[in-house]
Amino acid sequence: MTRTSLRGLIRTVNTSKSPITRSIHTTMAPKGPALNIKSINQSVIDVHYAVRGELALKADKYTQQLNNPKDHSLDKLPFEHVVTANIGNPQQKGLNQVPLTFWRQVISLVEYPDLFKKHLDLAKKIYPEDVIERAKSLHEEIGSVGAYTHSKGVLSIRKRVAKFIEERDGYPADPESIYLTAGASAGVSSMLAIALQPGDGCMIPIPQYPLYTATLAYLNATPLPYYLNESEDWSMDHDTLLKAVSEAKSKGIPVKALVIINPGNPTGSCLSKEAMEAVVHLCYEEGIVLMADEVYQTNIYDPSHRPFASFKKVLKSMPEKIANSVELVSFHSISKGVSGECGRRGGYYECVNISPEVMEQVYKMASVTLCPPVSGQIGVDLMVSPPKAGSPSYDLWKQETDLIHNNLKERSLLMAEHFNKLPGMSCNPAEGAMYLFPKIEMPQKAIEEAKKRGKEADVMYALDLLDATGICAVAGSGFGQEPGTYHLRVTALCPETAEFIGRFEKFHKEFLEQYK
Amino acid sequence: MTRTSLRGLIRTVNTSKSPITRSIHTTMAPKGPALNIKSINQSVIDVHYAVRGELALKADKYTQQLNNPKDHSLDKLPFEHVVTANIGNPQQKGLNQVPLTFWRQVISLVEYPDLFKKHLDLAKKIYPEDVIERAKSLHEEIGSVGAYTHSKGVLSIRKRVAKFIEERDGYPADPESIYLTAGASAGVSSMLAIALQPGDGCMIPIPQYPLYTATLAYLNATPLPYYLNESEDWSMDHDTLLKAVSEAKSKGIPVKALVIINPGNPTGSCLSKEAMEAVVHLCYEEGIVLMADEVYQTNIYDPSHRPFASFKKVLKSMPEKIANSVELVSFHSISKGVSGECGRRGGYYECVNISPEVMEQVYKMASVTLCPPVSGQIGVDLMVSPPKAGSPSYDLWKQETDLIHNNLKERSLLMAEHFNKLPGMSCNPAEGAMYLFPKIEMPQKAIEEAKKRGKEADVMYALDLLDATGICAVAGSGFGQEPGTYHLRVTALCPETAEFIGRFEKFHKEFLEQYK
Repeated sequence: MTRTSLRGLIRTVNTSKSPITRSIHTTMAPKGPALNIKSINQSVIDVHYAVRGELALKADKYTQQLNNPKDHSLDKLPFEHVVTANIGNPQQKGLNQVPLTFWRQVISLVEYPDLFKKHLDLAKKIYPEDVIERAKSLHEEIGSVGAYTHSKGVLSIRKRVAKFIEERDGYPADPESIYLTAGASAGVSSMLAIALQPGDGCMIPIPQYPLYTATLAYLNATPLPYYLNESEDWSMDHDTLLKAVSEAKSKGIPVKALVIINPGNPTGSCLSKEAMEAVVHLCYEEGIVLMADEVYQTNIYDPSHRPFASFKKVLKSMPEKIANSVELVSFHSISKGVSGECGRRGGYYECVNISPEVMEQVYKMASVTLCPPVSGQIGVDLMVSPPKAGSPSYDLWKQETDLIHNNLKERSLLMAEHFNKLPGMSCNPAEGAMYLFPKIEMPQKAIEEAKKRGKEADVMYALDLLDATGICAVAGSGFGQEPGTYHLRVTALCPETAEFIGRFEKFHKEFLEQYK
Repeated sequence: MTRTSLRGLIRTVNTSKSPITRSIHTTMAPKGPALNIKSINQSVIDVHYAVRGELALKADKYTQQLNNPKDHSLDKLPFEHVVTANIGNPQQKGLNQVPLTFWRQVISLVEYPDLFKKHLDLAKKIYPEDVIERAKSLHEEIGSVGAYTHSKGVLSIRKRVAKFIEERDGYPADPESIYLTAGASAGVSSMLAIALQPGDGCMIPIPQYPLYTATLAYLNATPLPYYLNESEDWSMDHDTLLKAVSEAKSKGIPVKALVIINPGNPTGSCLSKEAMEAVVHLCYEEGIVLMADEVYQTNIYDPSHRPFASFKKVLKSMPEKIANSVELVSFHSISKGVSGECGRRGGYYECVNISPEVMEQVYKMASVTLCPPVSGQIGVDLMVSPPKAGSPSYDLWKQETDLIHNNLKERSLLMAEHFNKLPGMSCNPAEGAMYLFPKIEMPQKAIEEAKKRGKEADVMYALDLLDATGICAVAGSGFGQEPGTYHLRVTALCPETAEFIGRFEKFHKEFLEQYK
């Protein structure tokens, strides 16, 4: 191998008169850092994300402190463990939602195929037959899980997603319009980034999941809030919806997209078919692309009363001119539902009625990120095609998923009941998802104290709650709320619900007493 | 649970005079699609990504066709399988680089901890002792791999990354400045997105990995190309480097960042310490943040001649005023090296000398994406702390990694040798990474023919090569090259190197004959 380049380069550096060489020996003053708060991308500065902000950092610190009880340099905390009710993270330490056995068995086999190739006899003593078969067929389709897949995700998995959608909705789905993603968040960010030009308007519900405001801020797009009506179980107030459109129009802001979260985060409400049709119709008339965040579609507490209906289904059941024209992107995820596999980063979105020229751009942008994590893709496969009744894994899977459904529902109802018994607090019971969003009648003195501390009153409440009880819940202002109202978002995932309620009630009453 | 909302809403939709209800019954003309090529984010249109473009789509089509030999509606192809030399995807079907056994064993256990909890006796018959111990301790640290981790990644893994960097470089590393990512690409995109304002200049090598031009196009930042010198084994021409800076300055473009890829992709060259110092010095004098893509740091063919030196090490060995001021972000990945675990999506970046106020923004943006895939994080852990000599897994691990190193080196040398024997073709032998970038002396007639077809001549060459031989290689124009020169990027991963060379030579000679 010739080394002319090295010799050439060393020569250049040591002896030549190239300006850069000379500059090494000069003492020119440096220019100072390239990156400071004024020089970096200014859109980044505008991004806010409350779910993992000051509160989460403080909770982390307390957790570390409680894990090192011998460190006497720190004051003793008034609680023994941190209750993480701030993030929908079911398998988090302390929440202990057990992963679905079927999932983990299949994944362990595709991760290490020698288990069924070289050690089949031993594997049969550990794994049910259908698990081994499923792993074998996934391995055959995918090959090594360490290889890049197609940028849209593995085709055979996308085909099964299409089948799942077809069976759910009763309308055909095209695997080529389905993109597997690293969780719904990754899908939402990339689709909003493609759809929106700087300045474009995007309607978002208030309260909302803060991913939306964060992404819009980063994209320099304009959030057009429509307020959900708390006194009507967080249903949509259609006048507000229309008002948001016409206000935007009067300001010359093009209304490009409408985000809807159903079942609602943080509200827990489920939309009626009629409300959904009205939204689709608005999109039809105004030429708005509908972004439907449907990641909680499996988390419905009373499916007999209000079964989940996807926006795809509602759209496709409307008159043909609407069904075949309203642009829809629907997002789903393995992080919620009964799987709760947040850390695996898996999800998908389906594009409906998006023009081929735009779909080409979607594909190009997906290809720049190479491919979604294969482990997450397999998660999507297991979500859309769980064990069938009668198969060896079915009973355990049913038992595990039923328990998860029941736990969530029971805890959610119990918590709402107690919130409603507290003075100065009210809470709409949730119909789905995994959160409650109780309202706090904030005492005037607390509002004044918060102002002194330079915080929103509900942020102060949440921080004081954490300090006093170890309960970590996010202030409503992180999600948006009607001006002058104050809320908290708490997850319904905490196994010690009674303990949670006890600690919470004590704090709340003391807080009211303090600021009465 | 009260259902006032539903009743209220249905009432509204059926009977009220709300404007949206009435609009359902009107026949207003729809506005047409929200998303078309003119209405979407125009920066997206400007993004190009050659590695997975027309060529990859065509190769996919051929692969599917070869998998369905009974479909007689299609012409018979003149080859029996597609040789994927276009993507650095070692574990891809047909390339068959075997995953490291140690990795897959550990991961299968942390995916399904019952293997060591409930089935320990059976597990001991399958897994070496150190694998079980490693999986247990990872499980203890992380908990369920289905839970979100810290947005920066699991702390204990970041600590081991810091230790790995310290041992590699001889300088301290701070786990709090290390971010685990979904592969290096995700890290590069997010850091460039934070660092660059629209219009900011970012120096990039030409040829480059097209992620950089794609990301800069999306960010509306200005690529400032500096040409690598092919006649000097793709070393940096420092005059060109300086010329790029002063040209940008004369146009009023602020030079904010400098991207460098070492070992080089697609060039395969390794930088000398002197060349690296000169780059750091330029960054010091001009106040430029250095983005060092070091994902091929393990892929060095002759470490005794040219061991890998990181930019961190070079920077920290320079005078204190430089060592403590030049801003550096270094990217690493589990997709390359000997692991080749592309599909797992794992990597990390280390920030050096970045101001705390900017690091806060980095943390905030990481938190919006929740956390990197846990499976990829575990991959990073296994990369930075492989089995120790003497442990039960060591010998197999050593044997497997040696084979991967040797295969790459042998194939790369053999291919370069043959490229150099061909008429109208020359190729710098690679010193590392996993590619070769041979130059084609393109016949004038071929250039004219390509113009007729509306393509770059090397794109036409690559497409014709695929059609004739099934070999999939990317045209140099996808990476950038000196105007008037033509190249191909081929990976050195193909196990049938001799067959590859034979088919390639035949095509190349016929191509020259055709256009002589």
